[in-house]
Amino acid sequence: MSKTALIPLANGSEEIEAVTIIDVLRRADIDVTVASINDSGDLHIRGSHGIQIVADCSIDICAKTNFDLIAIPGGLPGAEHLAANAALDKLLREQAAEGKLYGAICAAPQLVLASKGLLDNKMVTGHPMFQTLPNAKEVNSESRVVVDGNCITSQGPGTALDFALELVEQLCGLVKREEVSSRLVLTTSATAYY
Amino acid sequence: MSKTALIPLANGSEEIEAVTIIDVLRRADIDVTVASINDSGDLHIRGSHGIQIVADCSIDICAKTNFDLIAIPGGLPGAEHLAANAALDKLLREQAAEGKLYGAICAAPQLVLASKGLLDNKMVTGHPMFQTLPNAKEVNSESRVVVDGNCITSQGPGTALDFALELVEQLCGLVKREEVSSRLVLTTSATAYY
Repeated sequence: MSKTALIPLANGSEEIEAVTIIDVLRRADIDVTVASINDSGDLHIRGSHGIQIVADCSIDICAKTNFDLIAIPGGLPGAEHLAANAALDKLLREQAAEGKLYGAICAAPQLVLASKGLLDNKMVTGHPMFQTLPNAKEVNSESRVVVDGNCITSQGPGTALDFALELVEQLCGLVKREEVSSRLVLTTSATAYY
Repeated sequence: MSKTALIPLANGSEEIEAVTIIDVLRRADIDVTVASINDSGDLHIRGSHGIQIVADCSIDICAKTNFDLIAIPGGLPGAEHLAANAALDKLLREQAAEGKLYGAICAAPQLVLASKGLLDNKMVTGHPMFQTLPNAKEVNSESRVVVDGNCITSQGPGTALDFALELVEQLCGLVKREEVSSRLVLTTSATAYY
């Protein structure tokens, strides 16, 4: 059976982060649900750089679903909206309490996970402007991605591919990660000018 | 005055490539128009990994607009649809004839630009599976991005950030590229496991 992942989106979510996570997880044949947290039930999200993305469903209909992973994109004010959503709050707390995989990138580790105590005593990272994480075990500000047990954090748009591939590895193993990674053309060298 | 860019999208366009280009160009304050090529005029695009993106307008209303840049995302069958669109065909041929900037990534250099003769005698790159470019001067299969005058090509999702940043540099200069790049958190080191 496919692994399952929930990616919640809000107005003001960072589009590179959101789309990179969704796209890469789907390349690994993970069953990804993109959920809007709009109160109105509108599935259209306008990201932090004005790109409109249509979610698959409203977060409310995910309330009784179990996911193997919940991964939270950053972006402002998207991460603030995600932090304030009651349905996502419940899902995230249950995910952590059950020892299942959860992750966040950019502003979301601090604004979403830490605000709920879900980074307490964890090794973590986040965007350089969002590394105020007093209850974390330690902030690793150098690494693109930090894995501490079932909690995975990352820094920003430039690390989103690494974050997404790490989520694939945690859910589906290294062979699947390498299969997906090889098709992304990551190992090429610098720009050539003529 | 802001520089302007046209990013055409079709059903089956690659989402990481499309969104990374749009997002990064907007971070550089470039005025980006995301245009749907759907015949029906529907602005909703479903990408090659099932992500729905809403374009800003239909390609038809761009027909008389001048853009400083036209950049084409890859993905299948998106690149095939883009190659077949008459309005985009006219815009691309004019762009090249006027010596203005144009670019493509992944399958799009071969399927869109080469099919119109717009890579003839150019140094180019593209996705490893789409490097059949007999009229190009030479295919550089090692480089993430290849710049030959006003023609910029790149390999795939894993090189999309480099491609987008190169487009910023060509339109707005190195200082702006570095300003945008620094906020993307690109210079961090590898994943840390605890």
